[in-house]
Amino acid sequence: MKRRIRMGMVGGGPGAFIGGVHRMAARLDGKIELVCGCFGTTHEKNMIMADELLLPKERCYDTYQQMIEAEAKLPEGERMDFVAVTTPNSTHFQIAMCALEHGFHVVCEKPITMNADEAQKLAAKVKETGLLFALMHNYSAYPMTRQMKAMIAAGTIGTPRKIVATYDLGWLAGTNACKQAEWRVNPKFSGAAACVGDIGTHAEQLIEFTTGLKITEVAADLTTFVEGRLLDDDASIMLRFDSGAKGVIEVSEVASGEENQFKLRVYGTTGSLEWSQQEPENLILRTNDNAMKTIRRGWAGMLPEIGAFVRTPAGHPEGFIEAFGNIYLDFANALIARQEGKPYTTSYPDVEDGVREMLFVEAVVKSSNNNGVWTKL
Amino acid sequence: MKRRIRMGMVGGGPGAFIGGVHRMAARLDGKIELVCGCFGTTHEKNMIMADELLLPKERCYDTYQQMIEAEAKLPEGERMDFVAVTTPNSTHFQIAMCALEHGFHVVCEKPITMNADEAQKLAAKVKETGLLFALMHNYSAYPMTRQMKAMIAAGTIGTPRKIVATYDLGWLAGTNACKQAEWRVNPKFSGAAACVGDIGTHAEQLIEFTTGLKITEVAADLTTFVEGRLLDDDASIMLRFDSGAKGVIEVSEVASGEENQFKLRVYGTTGSLEWSQQEPENLILRTNDNAMKTIRRGWAGMLPEIGAFVRTPAGHPEGFIEAFGNIYLDFANALIARQEGKPYTTSYPDVEDGVREMLFVEAVVKSSNNNGVWTKL
Amino acid sequence: MKRRIRMGMVGGGPGAFIGGVHRMAARLDGKIELVCGCFGTTHEKNMIMADELLLPKERCYDTYQQMIEAEAKLPEGERMDFVAVTTPNSTHFQIAMCALEHGFHVVCEKPITMNADEAQKLAAKVKETGLLFALMHNYSAYPMTRQMKAMIAAGTIGTPRKIVATYDLGWLAGTNACKQAEWRVNPKFSGAAACVGDIGTHAEQLIEFTTGLKITEVAADLTTFVEGRLLDDDASIMLRFDSGAKGVIEVSEVASGEENQFKLRVYGTTGSLEWSQQEPENLILRTNDNAMKTIRRGWAGMLPEIGAFVRTPAGHPEGFIEAFGNIYLDFANALIARQEGKPYTTSYPDVEDGVREMLFVEAVVKSSNNNGVWTKL
Amino acid sequence: MKRRIRMGMVGGGPGAFIGGVHRMAARLDGKIELVCGCFGTTHEKNMIMADELLLPKERCYDTYQQMIEAEAKLPEGERMDFVAVTTPNSTHFQIAMCALEHGFHVVCEKPITMNADEAQKLAAKVKETGLLFALMHNYSAYPMTRQMKAMIAAGTIGTPRKIVATYDLGWLAGTNACKQAEWRVNPKFSGAAACVGDIGTHAEQLIEFTTGLKITEVAADLTTFVEGRLLDDDASIMLRFDSGAKGVIEVSEVASGEENQFKLRVYGTTGSLEWSQQEPENLILRTNDNAMKTIRRGWAGMLPEIGAFVRTPAGHPEGFIEAFGNIYLDFANALIARQEGKPYTTSYPDVEDGVREMLFVEAVVKSSNNNGVWTKL
Repeated sequence: MKRRIRMGMVGGGPGAFIGGVHRMAARLDGKIELVCGCFGTTHEKNMIMADELLLPKERCYDTYQQMIEAEAKLPEGERMDFVAVTTPNSTHFQIAMCALEHGFHVVCEKPITMNADEAQKLAAKVKETGLLFALMHNYSAYPMTRQMKAMIAAGTIGTPRKIVATYDLGWLAGTNACKQAEWRVNPKFSGAAACVGDIGTHAEQLIEFTTGLKITEVAADLTTFVEGRLLDDDASIMLRFDSGAKGVIEVSEVASGEENQFKLRVYGTTGSLEWSQQEPENLILRTNDNAMKTIRRGWAGMLPEIGAFVRTPAGHPEGFIEAFGNIYLDFANALIARQEGKPYTTSYPDVEDGVREMLFVEAVVKSSNNNGVWTKL
Repeated sequence: MKRRIRMGMVGGGPGAFIGGVHRMAARLDGKIELVCGCFGTTHEKNMIMADELLLPKERCYDTYQQMIEAEAKLPEGERMDFVAVTTPNSTHFQIAMCALEHGFHVVCEKPITMNADEAQKLAAKVKETGLLFALMHNYSAYPMTRQMKAMIAAGTIGTPRKIVATYDLGWLAGTNACKQAEWRVNPKFSGAAACVGDIGTHAEQLIEFTTGLKITEVAADLTTFVEGRLLDDDASIMLRFDSGAKGVIEVSEVASGEENQFKLRVYGTTGSLEWSQQEPENLILRTNDNAMKTIRRGWAGMLPEIGAFVRTPAGHPEGFIEAFGNIYLDFANALIARQEGKPYTTSYPDVEDGVREMLFVEAVVKSSNNNGVWTKL
Repeated sequence: MKRRIRMGMVGGGPGAFIGGVHRMAARLDGKIELVCGCFGTTHEKNMIMADELLLPKERCYDTYQQMIEAEAKLPEGERMDFVAVTTPNSTHFQIAMCALEHGFHVVCEKPITMNADEAQKLAAKVKETGLLFALMHNYSAYPMTRQMKAMIAAGTIGTPRKIVATYDLGWLAGTNACKQAEWRVNPKFSGAAACVGDIGTHAEQLIEFTTGLKITEVAADLTTFVEGRLLDDDASIMLRFDSGAKGVIEVSEVASGEENQFKLRVYGTTGSLEWSQQEPENLILRTNDNAMKTIRRGWAGMLPEIGAFVRTPAGHPEGFIEAFGNIYLDFANALIARQEGKPYTTSYPDVEDGVREMLFVEAVVKSSNNNGVWTKL
Repeated sequence: MKRRIRMGMVGGGPGAFIGGVHRMAARLDGKIELVCGCFGTTHEKNMIMADELLLPKERCYDTYQQMIEAEAKLPEGERMDFVAVTTPNSTHFQIAMCALEHGFHVVCEKPITMNADEAQKLAAKVKETGLLFALMHNYSAYPMTRQMKAMIAAGTIGTPRKIVATYDLGWLAGTNACKQAEWRVNPKFSGAAACVGDIGTHAEQLIEFTTGLKITEVAADLTTFVEGRLLDDDASIMLRFDSGAKGVIEVSEVASGEENQFKLRVYGTTGSLEWSQQEPENLILRTNDNAMKTIRRGWAGMLPEIGAFVRTPAGHPEGFIEAFGNIYLDFANALIARQEGKPYTTSYPDVEDGVREMLFVEAVVKSSNNNGVWTKL
């Protein structure tokens, strides 16, 4: 009776990075199987992937439209259940929209679209169809960012006052950065912003996810340090929140020597929390009246509800793939519950996170274009 | 033509920890599929697992003998290729031997057997049959322990002089430690040693793996701190190596508050290397005439050959499951090459590592029983 | 012939923190002796300090004017050589000016004065008199910040592009913060800014000191989180530099649970450097084409010229008092050289650093008052 | 009435390391002044030091005997109060004995003497004379090792079971190690052991100091890795304690690339504590039923009584010199109390710690000479 959830993938062709991560994450818990895909832009590339992924050639399609249409016509016992979208930003909207229109659920890489208008259209379509839509903001699926969210909600640090997120990486520091990076600074594929869209949105999403606050205004200074680029490779952004809290997002893709140095600190009235992606197993709690605590994934101090997204005992590190896996697991569980007619509450980021991130990007770009004037989302 | 490698599993029933890790690791790269198993000791438990793992009920067997015999009779296009052994120590020998005798390759949890005699019998059988046998010493499959081995072999730290490994965890500190821990201090299931067999062998294997040296003598002091236990829960061990190097292994399962604090330091004539399992992405190189270097998985400084066991870019953490996955990946690649008649050099720990770990355990126990006298392996 | 340099102190009375640090730092190397002072605002307090510091009562004066005038009249072989100013900000200007006018050299706590006008007057007076003036920006006297400055000057990281400094502490998080903190949020004693003057200036000075760049414009958002305060207790500041570099300063005194979390990162075209005050012995060098290096105080990799400010071997930690001591040592060496008619090049922060910090504070306050408009220094 | 305590120093001549640290530490709090010394082995060296330290030439003596005899004849208002012994090990005994016999208190570098017999003679003389004797085991004077002792005494981690101390440094790794190191591997100056005497005693003393336990037996393996040395440069030692606890000391002076990597872990029945000299501001508390705590010097969680040895606020690092300073401060306070006829309880390590360290060294050497047989102290 029971069966695996069937995934179709768009993107993730030969040499692609993020598509491979999606596939490993989807496989991890044994609840999802990849049944079809349109991995690359040519027939040849798709045949290479069919071979590599041990898929039937006929289900490795030349275009996403072909895939979606053909799968829609397959009998229910065969056709894919959802589409994983792992292409460059510029195509997310049409692929996701096409999938939704044909009745397929969607897991989509972030940033959701090229602009807020597209994101809102997707949001409307999701609402209209009642289909599931997960946005792959993986950092919000680490057990210790979930713990952070839960502790803030529980009042552990009082009321948040100051929030600081920094994401620094060095891969675009050189004038001849790696191939994979190229489309990211090309407005045709990336949209209105590069660094802000790529990693600034990670900072924005994780801040709103963990604190439950909304950014209301930004003042931004975008810079293109490497000559010849059409988009920003660095950004400094000041934040104001609906609660009166303040914040800073500092992101750079020309931060020579940094890998993926993503850190978040939230200072509240009675304590603070700090999380760092490169040491994701630790959540640091500081207060003025107690010794510093390091809450570790899997150990005493972790809230029981976080356990659902933990796969190994404390001290046996989990990481990036497992965080992706948590979103796939949650998504698969939601689909299974739906098939079985059972209630289920998802905790993955969704299309609303996508609308927020696009509003954020647009406000940041507008502010920077107006020499940093405070600009509402 | 191409197909996934087919795995049968013994062990890993409801609530088991390590069997689940084996399954996730085997799934990760999409080269292996679980096709059958004998997961638990009762029919009922196996039916629970059939349901959970979406396996056909008829391939979830009541005993490992039934499984091995039945699978051996299946047509080649259906039957399992190898057996993953994830049961308590006491049964590894007979299961692995039975699998080998029926022509199945084996992936076996460590420690390999209950004693050196059994390990040597398995080694002989592996030699005789020419079948593949991987021993799950996962720590030796982290990219940065591979890097450590390669750098030592390349002479980066000169000649090793002093080697120190410590593995401390707290889960047996209490008098009523968790259920899962119980069989580990029971000689019927664990053999001659508990803490030494469980984590001392990790230290021994990783030392010999990374340095290429052999331990020749040990002087040991085993202790049972928690009353009522029949086996050691703590050990201090001094080491002498074939090269004249010296060493220390300090392991404890009553180290209150520690998770899996496994650290290895190797001091050579011109430099030293340090690795710590809880931060597995870092390998620290220290010398007297240069600043300390932290070699990071995936970043500049990592040797190119390590790349084969890396799945995500630097700064996006990989961990425990990925290390297990590296052994499964290597094992699957070896089987595929074998099927295709292509040459392949494995790098996974094998039955010889199993013989060494059993000789080590026996020498340690003997030394401790003789009040710490130096005892040859 | 040779003798100790004689110090007179203003400030540092019973219960004061920073005055005590100045005294320990001045003592450390045995080149300076405290000979007189006006430590507190009452005769009684000064007599307590005379007793505690084993000073003659007659040289513990009731007012700084009395002290400076009386000491000026003492024979050359007895009178103080310089005045250490360790009072609240509001009095720095008049004390330092009075000392200079009477021919005394000055070591002054930061921030130098209440505003840029006062700082410029002091700078003019220093120029006019040719007297020595050291400003106690202690963070720039840690060996590893000196190393940072030297490496940037040498081009180790190429051309700086992005500079990020954060200084977070929690002592003003509560509504009833400690006594010592009170004057710091009172404009009468602190000037136009509290948090920005207190720790923002540390960030600004260390940035300009280590990079050699000048901040040309700021866009700032100051906040007073704790009700009833007249000055900021938190600030977010974006920076533009004369070279085209960009930056962020984020400082907070309501960062619950933080001690003195002061961190500086400088990203250049070919590498980056990171220093953290709470682990001041480390300077981290990251590049895209090499493993991360941690340059440690006293170890190989430290530049030879830094050795002059190192007192213990690598691995034997030095800290805050030693950094203060480095400024006193440099100052004492300069005075000795002057007495002996020998050339000497000082490396301590001086009155020009004071002018810069006041211009910075004024621009930040002005920008924040104008809703974050970019404002020139 | 009140005055500074007067120190005479033996050792600490031109180029010496530890003598300089003693002088900085003694100066730090302004309670001690150096009044005389016999710093080097020649008149010329002593005159250099007189000049450098601004001491009267007539109080810089050619021999320690001259110094002690001459000072003893000075009027009470002038003569030194105590002798600081900072020479190589071989001369500690006669200098300290001579000082005690002439009525002078003593601060002595460790290890106390060349053997247990000498140490016991000193202990008897201290008892007989009632004079003060501090042994410079500086690691036991860090605020966080004091906190560790206090927490263990209070039962915070239950009953200690396993104790592990490691001290690794690299300065003797090369065949031509630095000059200063030479006398340390020469039995004429160092005694029966080099590495064990030099750093093994630090480990032993800090273990007994913090836990309150006594080592009863050792099994040791000493090694001389660098050819031509007459003494050990590396040691592995297993420990048994009077309480039934077990332990390991691992020390090496050929640990290439290590600075002063001294770490202590104590595992008790209900928790554990870890301290590391290179990050001395942290004391880590781990338990099985709570999140890890990092108790920081000066912050909430530090016991109030530790405050007496704290000079700067939390987050402003203190280090090695301050720890030495704590012993001098305690010693000076004890002398002042004695002069004033007031009661005072010292907490510095004393002559009894010296007897213990010598018994330890002798047992270790004896065990190693007997191929590691368990040997009683």
